[in-house]
Amino acid sequence: MVTRTELANAIRALAMDAVQKANSGHPGMPMGMAEIAVALWGNNHYRHNPANPKWINRDRFVISNGHGSMLHYALLHLTGYDLSIEDLKQFRQFHSRTPGHPEYGYTPGIETTTGPLGQGIANAVGMALAEKLLAKEFNRPGHEIVDHHTWVFMGDGCMMEGISHEVCALAGTWGLGKLVAFWDDNGISIDGHVEGWFTDDTPARFEAYGWHVVRNVDGHDVDALNAAIEAAKAETNKPTLICCRTVIGQGSPNKAGGHDCHGAPLGDAEIAATRAAIGWNHEPFVIPAEVYAGWSKKAFGATTEVAWNQKFSAYAAEFPELAAEFKRRMANELPANFAEVAEKAVAETVAKAETVATRKASQNAINLLAPNLPEFLGGSADLTGSNLTNWKGCTQLTKDGGNYISYGVREFGMAAIMNGVGLHGGYRPFGGTFLVFSEYARNALRMAALMKVNSIFVFTHDSIGLGEDGPTHQPIEQVATLRLIPNMNVWRPADTVETMAAWAHAVEQAHTPSSLILSRQNLAFQARSAEQVAAIAKGGYVLRDCAGAPQLVLIATGSEVDLAVKAAEQLAAEGVQVRVVSMPCTNVFDKQDAKYRDAVLPKGVKRLAIEAGVSDFWYKYVGLEGGVIGIDRFGESAPAGTLFKHFGFSVENVIARAKSLL
Amino acid sequence: MVTRTELANAIRALAMDAVQKANSGHPGMPMGMAEIAVALWGNNHYRHNPANPKWINRDRFVISNGHGSMLHYALLHLTGYDLSIEDLKQFRQFHSRTPGHPEYGYTPGIETTTGPLGQGIANAVGMALAEKLLAKEFNRPGHEIVDHHTWVFMGDGCMMEGISHEVCALAGTWGLGKLVAFWDDNGISIDGHVEGWFTDDTPARFEAYGWHVVRNVDGHDVDALNAAIEAAKAETNKPTLICCRTVIGQGSPNKAGGHDCHGAPLGDAEIAATRAAIGWNHEPFVIPAEVYAGWSKKAFGATTEVAWNQKFSAYAAEFPELAAEFKRRMANELPANFAEVAEKAVAETVAKAETVATRKASQNAINLLAPNLPEFLGGSADLTGSNLTNWKGCTQLTKDGGNYISYGVREFGMAAIMNGVGLHGGYRPFGGTFLVFSEYARNALRMAALMKVNSIFVFTHDSIGLGEDGPTHQPIEQVATLRLIPNMNVWRPADTVETMAAWAHAVEQAHTPSSLILSRQNLAFQARSAEQVAAIAKGGYVLRDCAGAPQLVLIATGSEVDLAVKAAEQLAAEGVQVRVVSMPCTNVFDKQDAKYRDAVLPKGVKRLAIEAGVSDFWYKYVGLEGGVIGIDRFGESAPAGTLFKHFGFSVENVIARAKSLL
Repeated sequence: MVTRTELANAIRALAMDAVQKANSGHPGMPMGMAEIAVALWGNNHYRHNPANPKWINRDRFVISNGHGSMLHYALLHLTGYDLSIEDLKQFRQFHSRTPGHPEYGYTPGIETTTGPLGQGIANAVGMALAEKLLAKEFNRPGHEIVDHHTWVFMGDGCMMEGISHEVCALAGTWGLGKLVAFWDDNGISIDGHVEGWFTDDTPARFEAYGWHVVRNVDGHDVDALNAAIEAAKAETNKPTLICCRTVIGQGSPNKAGGHDCHGAPLGDAEIAATRAAIGWNHEPFVIPAEVYAGWSKKAFGATTEVAWNQKFSAYAAEFPELAAEFKRRMANELPANFAEVAEKAVAETVAKAETVATRKASQNAINLLAPNLPEFLGGSADLTGSNLTNWKGCTQLTKDGGNYISYGVREFGMAAIMNGVGLHGGYRPFGGTFLVFSEYARNALRMAALMKVNSIFVFTHDSIGLGEDGPTHQPIEQVATLRLIPNMNVWRPADTVETMAAWAHAVEQAHTPSSLILSRQNLAFQARSAEQVAAIAKGGYVLRDCAGAPQLVLIATGSEVDLAVKAAEQLAAEGVQVRVVSMPCTNVFDKQDAKYRDAVLPKGVKRLAIEAGVSDFWYKYVGLEGGVIGIDRFGESAPAGTLFKHFGFSVENVIARAKSLL
Repeated sequence: MVTRTELANAIRALAMDAVQKANSGHPGMPMGMAEIAVALWGNNHYRHNPANPKWINRDRFVISNGHGSMLHYALLHLTGYDLSIEDLKQFRQFHSRTPGHPEYGYTPGIETTTGPLGQGIANAVGMALAEKLLAKEFNRPGHEIVDHHTWVFMGDGCMMEGISHEVCALAGTWGLGKLVAFWDDNGISIDGHVEGWFTDDTPARFEAYGWHVVRNVDGHDVDALNAAIEAAKAETNKPTLICCRTVIGQGSPNKAGGHDCHGAPLGDAEIAATRAAIGWNHEPFVIPAEVYAGWSKKAFGATTEVAWNQKFSAYAAEFPELAAEFKRRMANELPANFAEVAEKAVAETVAKAETVATRKASQNAINLLAPNLPEFLGGSADLTGSNLTNWKGCTQLTKDGGNYISYGVREFGMAAIMNGVGLHGGYRPFGGTFLVFSEYARNALRMAALMKVNSIFVFTHDSIGLGEDGPTHQPIEQVATLRLIPNMNVWRPADTVETMAAWAHAVEQAHTPSSLILSRQNLAFQARSAEQVAAIAKGGYVLRDCAGAPQLVLIATGSEVDLAVKAAEQLAAEGVQVRVVSMPCTNVFDKQDAKYRDAVLPKGVKRLAIEAGVSDFWYKYVGLEGGVIGIDRFGESAPAGTLFKHFGFSVENVIARAKSLL
């Protein structure tokens, strides 16, 4: 019978061979965490079904130290997922299913994209939160249809990153008892032995967050690890950290325990020496049948899922509506009536014709949508009263459930947790902060876009219009920089109707995150035809046209749209033919066909863009011949009206600049 | 004689009156931390001289919870700084000296700009580090010329932010014994009472970082606070956290202890009630003479600085060269021979004509400059071997000093600590990470630019050229987004010479931070005339010209410059007149006069920009008629050569696109 040592060594061999073949990669972590994988996966603590990686009630497994991707690929291959030995040989090659870091959507069984350190554990906190909330919402006495663990591997790098503080503190506060993290305490990071830069008492730190900590576990002793996992499962009110003392690159006679094996192939000679040292006498990429048999989880997976399917059938029989709703929610499908609800909400908003801040318009939109979207899971990074992200009837999250989260002052953690919730499924997260602090969360926004997770980010206080709080709080470059993230829709609506339309569009996206950029101050309601209202969803449209061919097109977004309209009116009175284009979402406008884009922005007509932010972005639309009224320096602390005037956002200045272009 | 209660109430009155007059601001924190200010400033623990806010050996004082700016403004006014009662009346008004948040450079005595939570404590860690290192470097037995504390006020928000984890862990590791932080433990954040989202055992957390923690201090008891400060000063090997239980808005009968007084004026009625409750019977902005007398630190400041001046004179008499060097360094002045050294370094680099990665070229540049720049304080966020930020003879930072810092995997903390070092003076910090992870540090980069701190950020692995690590590690939008930060110079050099010139330019900046964007892979050396070498400092220049007027201008940066040159050569062979412009720094190029810019990019000639990043940015230079070869989607995991070809970065594609434009 295959030994546990052989099971672990199969991981070691595949990791070092694949890295060597790719001539790039990270063998140290897989070799160091191999026994932990044996304890968790081999002993069936990790409940999953290789034949159905999307089984709803599977445990989630996240490698937060994502450079150790080969550990996960090896496990997926060995346990019977649709990931062949040929796939492993293509590690890190173009369009392979085994990219350098785990990439969500590329490989069956990969639950999230990791590599940017600290975000994997954050995603895992989101997954564990989603599980807990779904269980509260859908389970019924005797019907525990939602009941799974989230397991995380994390290294010293994740521990050092600030985001680990944010999300682990929240996991403790929320009492996520089914979250279990394994700390790969190998004392090595890229700069070498960590004593010079990482001296935290990590167990004490996690106890300070309210975690259950299992200290001093030998990370190469499967029995000790097994006992620690049992202890973790027994503690259901707190997340658990299992502190595993490991040797990086364990098995390599000359490189184990040093940082040389972290991020480079071992080399042929050292691989040979390692094979000899660990007694693995098989050719590269050759795994003996008995090792495959020892690792296979096909039977376990089938049994496990079948048992759950029976459970779910019983549940569905007793609670058919709940079961259908649960399936809809987990499939990331909108309610069948969503289009109707959204249309009605837009019509209602048009009818009301309110002049309010777009952050308030956003709250109105949430109120109109929320009754039909029980999957809404809102929140804010401690700015609820400013972001206006809460709604009538939402319930504040506590250990006992809820659908509105006060994340505390933790923007990055919030965004990455939202991504984890989205990846888990069952909820549609949105979260707010001030636009300028989108920067704290910046890489999590990118990760949402990269993973095609449809998170909705609510960013209020969108320009110098926030006034007295001054330059640290006044966005200048943020709207433009967000627009540059591939697969991110950035909406900067001009009034209540554009805000409502932006919310509807954002909710409709299945694979694209959205950033909603909202004003602190009131923005004037704009009258529109039904056709114009419908055109908002195209990202840019003619809001005010002129008789005949325009001499100039004014392009504006958000708070500057009303300014453009007023300037156009005065210019028209002077006999200048000016068109006003409202461009709430450049990303969506860019996706329209050329015919539509040219109809909105006719070729050969000069253009003047107006936006209270950096001007560079707008040359894409106005070219070298056009003009931009923007802000290319930091703001100032003063009342908003003073600032807009100072920075040239006045009807007079728009008219003057317009005339200078004619 | 004036009582301590009156001293504290003077702060309360000024804070609530100024906020009320501005009709915006944050009275809760100043009212809650008033006694802590009395204990620290009133009892002369804080050593400073109001008459000379730039006295070199002053203690540093940072309000990390910067929304409480009125506390600091009140203290500056009351103790005798050049900040009048009229200045306080102008709180939050346009171009006043009392902006909404403390802004470095606007107000005497303000040491750093705060407001973005967590960064003030990070700056303070940098200041305390600079003090410690300067003391090691310049003090001599019997001559403790560098000897001051760094004091920080921080709130729950700072505690929740991830960056507080990063920098407080480092402060513990580094043993910054003269750093003392006061935690304003008032149990309130904007969303309300913090129990639902902030349940850390903060004292235990800081002990886990190796801090000395003084627990359970009544933040309204000056004697207790004084004892805690004495304990902090007595502990010289560890930073100290003083945990102060306070009541937000203390003194306000109806609003104290709740979040309503955090960020809004109390209102006239509540202010009147507060005046009555605390027994402050003076008109708004009126401070009785005895209270001014009780608060004045003019005499204390003069005595304190005079004593130090005598100390420094004795030091200068015994160590004249050290004293002169110390003064130069603290004045942020380069060595007199810097221009010469830089010129020689460039000439040497030209002569070597090496084809290496620009990250390696950067290390060469550091090696050429470092012997003449003892103020260099380099470092990396755990990527030293990848960023190549270390140099010959640098010494790894330990508790005993050093000039090279392994910051661990803490990008945001690194950047904000660097800003603090720069604000303190004496060192010229630079620090590295992968370009994509500039996003983790994003807001600290912005803060450097806003504060006009000349930090140098080294960002390597600058494109899909990093290859196999895949999309999480491949920058796409990062170069463009960095360029959009006002007052940030972003250099993406094409070879060793441009890298050397970029380093020299970055070092020369007194008030502008620089980001150096460097390749992982080798970049071909480009031959240049002496005039071309000199023109690199203009940010953009003609690298390869054609005979006669060009039909097309190719604009490229970094790794794409060689591609442009090769395409131009082939086009020339086909009789097409093409100019190649190398544009290593668009920000600097934009600052050249129109004559120079037009000479490089002649009007009316079509342009094709080539950069392995988002294309949107380049329309500023190519207009609607030109073209861009860029990347507007996320990358892939594969060898670099495969990726460049796949994404259209081949001579063939450049030629094809060029021809399509003609």
